[in-house]
Amino acid sequence: MKIAIAQQNYHIGNFESNFQKIKKAIEEAVAKGADIVAFSELAVCGYAPRDFLEFDDFIASCLEVIEQIKAETVGKDIAVVVGAPSVNPVVEGKDLFNSAYFIADGEIKHLAHKTLLPTYDIFDEYRYFEPGKNFDLVSYKGQQIALTVCEDIWNIGNENPLYTVCPMDELIKKQPDFMINISASPFAYDHAEERIEVLKENVNRYGVPVFYVNAVGAQTEVIFDGGSLVLDDSANIVDEMPFFEEKMGIYDTNELIDTQKSVDKTQAKDKIPLIYDALIMGIRDYFGKLGFRFAILGSSGGIDSAVTLAIASAALGSEQVRAVLMPSQFSSDHSVNDAEQLSKNLGNPYDIIPIKNIFKSYTYALKKPFEGTTFNVTEENIQARIRGDLLMALSNKFGYILLNTSNKSEAAVGYGTLYGDMCGGLSVLGDVYKMEVYALARYINREREIIPENIIIKPPSAELRPDQKDSDSLPDYAILDEILYQYIEKRQGPKKLVNMGYDSALVARILKLVNTNEYKRYQTPPMLRVSSKAFGMGRRMPIVGKYLS
Amino acid sequence: MKIAIAQQNYHIGNFESNFQKIKKAIEEAVAKGADIVAFSELAVCGYAPRDFLEFDDFIASCLEVIEQIKAETVGKDIAVVVGAPSVNPVVEGKDLFNSAYFIADGEIKHLAHKTLLPTYDIFDEYRYFEPGKNFDLVSYKGQQIALTVCEDIWNIGNENPLYTVCPMDELIKKQPDFMINISASPFAYDHAEERIEVLKENVNRYGVPVFYVNAVGAQTEVIFDGGSLVLDDSANIVDEMPFFEEKMGIYDTNELIDTQKSVDKTQAKDKIPLIYDALIMGIRDYFGKLGFRFAILGSSGGIDSAVTLAIASAALGSEQVRAVLMPSQFSSDHSVNDAEQLSKNLGNPYDIIPIKNIFKSYTYALKKPFEGTTFNVTEENIQARIRGDLLMALSNKFGYILLNTSNKSEAAVGYGTLYGDMCGGLSVLGDVYKMEVYALARYINREREIIPENIIIKPPSAELRPDQKDSDSLPDYAILDEILYQYIEKRQGPKKLVNMGYDSALVARILKLVNTNEYKRYQTPPMLRVSSKAFGMGRRMPIVGKYLS
Repeated sequence: MKIAIAQQNYHIGNFESNFQKIKKAIEEAVAKGADIVAFSELAVCGYAPRDFLEFDDFIASCLEVIEQIKAETVGKDIAVVVGAPSVNPVVEGKDLFNSAYFIADGEIKHLAHKTLLPTYDIFDEYRYFEPGKNFDLVSYKGQQIALTVCEDIWNIGNENPLYTVCPMDELIKKQPDFMINISASPFAYDHAEERIEVLKENVNRYGVPVFYVNAVGAQTEVIFDGGSLVLDDSANIVDEMPFFEEKMGIYDTNELIDTQKSVDKTQAKDKIPLIYDALIMGIRDYFGKLGFRFAILGSSGGIDSAVTLAIASAALGSEQVRAVLMPSQFSSDHSVNDAEQLSKNLGNPYDIIPIKNIFKSYTYALKKPFEGTTFNVTEENIQARIRGDLLMALSNKFGYILLNTSNKSEAAVGYGTLYGDMCGGLSVLGDVYKMEVYALARYINREREIIPENIIIKPPSAELRPDQKDSDSLPDYAILDEILYQYIEKRQGPKKLVNMGYDSALVARILKLVNTNEYKRYQTPPMLRVSSKAFGMGRRMPIVGKYLS
Repeated sequence: MKIAIAQQNYHIGNFESNFQKIKKAIEEAVAKGADIVAFSELAVCGYAPRDFLEFDDFIASCLEVIEQIKAETVGKDIAVVVGAPSVNPVVEGKDLFNSAYFIADGEIKHLAHKTLLPTYDIFDEYRYFEPGKNFDLVSYKGQQIALTVCEDIWNIGNENPLYTVCPMDELIKKQPDFMINISASPFAYDHAEERIEVLKENVNRYGVPVFYVNAVGAQTEVIFDGGSLVLDDSANIVDEMPFFEEKMGIYDTNELIDTQKSVDKTQAKDKIPLIYDALIMGIRDYFGKLGFRFAILGSSGGIDSAVTLAIASAALGSEQVRAVLMPSQFSSDHSVNDAEQLSKNLGNPYDIIPIKNIFKSYTYALKKPFEGTTFNVTEENIQARIRGDLLMALSNKFGYILLNTSNKSEAAVGYGTLYGDMCGGLSVLGDVYKMEVYALARYINREREIIPENIIIKPPSAELRPDQKDSDSLPDYAILDEILYQYIEKRQGPKKLVNMGYDSALVARILKLVNTNEYKRYQTPPMLRVSSKAFGMGRRMPIVGKYLS
């Protein structure tokens, strides 16, 4: 039996476009002689549809697409496995299931409901779905198939399992020939390795080949990397499909039994190139799915805006990304020169708009209320906000989306001006720590100097007061990033951090900065998620909380 | 047996302050001869602690407070019912329970775990907690007590129940004498009525008196109104405790059996006064819990800023709220006069800072890039952002929190400038529709004219271009608010709205505005929640979604 895996990029709620993609893939699979073509979780509506699922009208549209898919299978020798919501016929419990539909001969032959509903980090599935409680195989062309949905296979090999059941423990009793898992498993730079581990554990436990179909493409901040997988019954990786691109793979089930294959066929998984590719897809899909083509950003001559500009140029095309240099009276000449050189290297259109006179008009207007006060962070913030306003003015006038250039280290400790450098429609580096931003810069320059070396080597500064350096206010980024990583990604509390050898005063200071700046992060743009714990919807903190603050 | 209900205002993560409140109430209850004193759900850490629950250190602090409470009961003739997380000893499933602790004689006598974990709207409980699966009574001083936590009693009397179990169906089999339910049930202007209905249904079904302990106080955007309830075994309301204040009530169980009481003792529940009181508590707690005393806001002479200013003055004291009038070249004289009169009526300090010259400095700086373009919404936005910048400058310089003055109708359709009038630490009216803002104004003026009549009667305008009126861009607020209410609160899709008699083109236009402006709402300040469906964490929408847009 031949199984086609359709790794596709859907658009949430764009039913027409999603259906056309699915239809085309069905045709391609038929042409290639596949018996079954499998699409990812909630393919019909895109993942995650979030509270759209609460609208009857949205569910009706999902079911209409299922009808269209049924029609596509009439008179064709193909079965379709596709993810969509289905309606829970029982009055008790949530109204929907997150289901894998098995469709052939114009009929729904089987519905497998997701049992394990991830409700942590960015996931909210129990908000919408009732867990599936029945476990049956699909019988098709003499093969017995176990159908599972994403998380359903993730509760094994874990010291501290999140759920009290394993759906495959039930399904395996009915002796399936193989398993198809349809997923929408988001990218994090270390997640593809975990996926392989979990799939291998499944094959080792259940002894059947696995076809794992993942989604690809970005939905606002959440990026799906694809990397769909096929494992034979000895847990060898027959194929890992590419990351960040749509593709169809076709595999013969007969070649996956007793193969004793010994070489895993996998994709490269180096952290920095993966992040780079993920951010490109993140930008491209944000613009594409919103129907925008042009970006704008503030180019300061610093490392964050340089890396953002280079990545945005790669994503959208250099001519589509406008750089705006907005020197203040405290900006050094080299900053302007570096930023100019960068845009020359990249080929961006750029403007230079000094902010000194606008700043003067603010100080004049505020003269009376500010009488007797001295220049402090307020005046720094005014300058940052003037820049934000100028960028937004250009964005509004010409229809650009403003890209935010803040990094994760800054976002964590609140080193940034709300409504100033924290403006933007999308944050490119909001989930990338400062030291990783440097690594991205080196990666971008791997073949030729795109980002001027001076931008990489000079000490970071906001240049909002004379001779300012980030290191005046913040610990060294190398140590800051480590502590932030342990606190944010690894959820280590203060005691554990001190036990790990970090200075207790420094730990207390950093954790307090992180917690008291929750109010700023509440108002930041969505940040492209590349780690296992990004700021935004995956990390939900009370603003008025009084904890480590 | 005498039961004390301690209706208290906790502070998330402020363990010391929460413990002191609990301790004082235990002492008061002892002094008043109570046998049991009951506190609300998650009282020890405050509700909702959100992702703080993922930190071992946070859980350890919760358990330390439980130890302290245990110590308080030693040698005292009192039992304490208090909400706190407890650790799930089983390796499978989530690591925590949301529990009601029953503590007496220095020991935990019983732990009742919440079974029904609300995971909808603003609630994320299955994110953290494993549902309780065992149902036992507490035996204390010869009485058999059913202990439940909030949602546990909400699955009855519902045509479409969310859960497949009812904990009290199990507990009632063991013949309890009465039930204590500890809750953290947030305010919405129509929620207190629902609460009474649900409690009456419980008593009608189970035939035992109910002691219902609710939290009071605001945690960022979520407001808890108190209104704790005691029902006798005939479902009469023996007491409904006051809204929006801390209080202890003491009730004798003997007086709740076979009383045949016929008069319900309840609190007034008029919508507009409730919203008014809720917003006052919302502002007061946001400032108090963050350690701030002073507010600032832009006072335009319009209805929204007037109502915000009046409510903030009532919450914080008039002298603590600074009004800033920032006329543009398009502002009418009456706007400035009205805003001035308002602050004179209220007794606020106020400034007048014209923005014309700052605006000029922007147009000068943007002259070249804007060459050949004409005045449009960009220039309107620049002016709104100048105002935001001035307010933030004063906020930064003097330590005010900026209050946002946008209403729910504007937030819904995106009628507002990001980083301009959408700035602020807290949105006071973000869950209040425009027509409700007018009703609040009338309510504020019920005894004397605080808000100048002219502010209430003049047509709404942003005054950002000559002779601008809201009605140039938006449908009449009366009809807009109705359609928004049906779409947002009632989740009616376009077909149903048209069936209800609304014009289909108007419906399509409004729904499109709501959906395409999700990107703006993503970056707004937290909005005090007063309805059953507020923007913010209770309504989660994909930004790149292509649905009704």
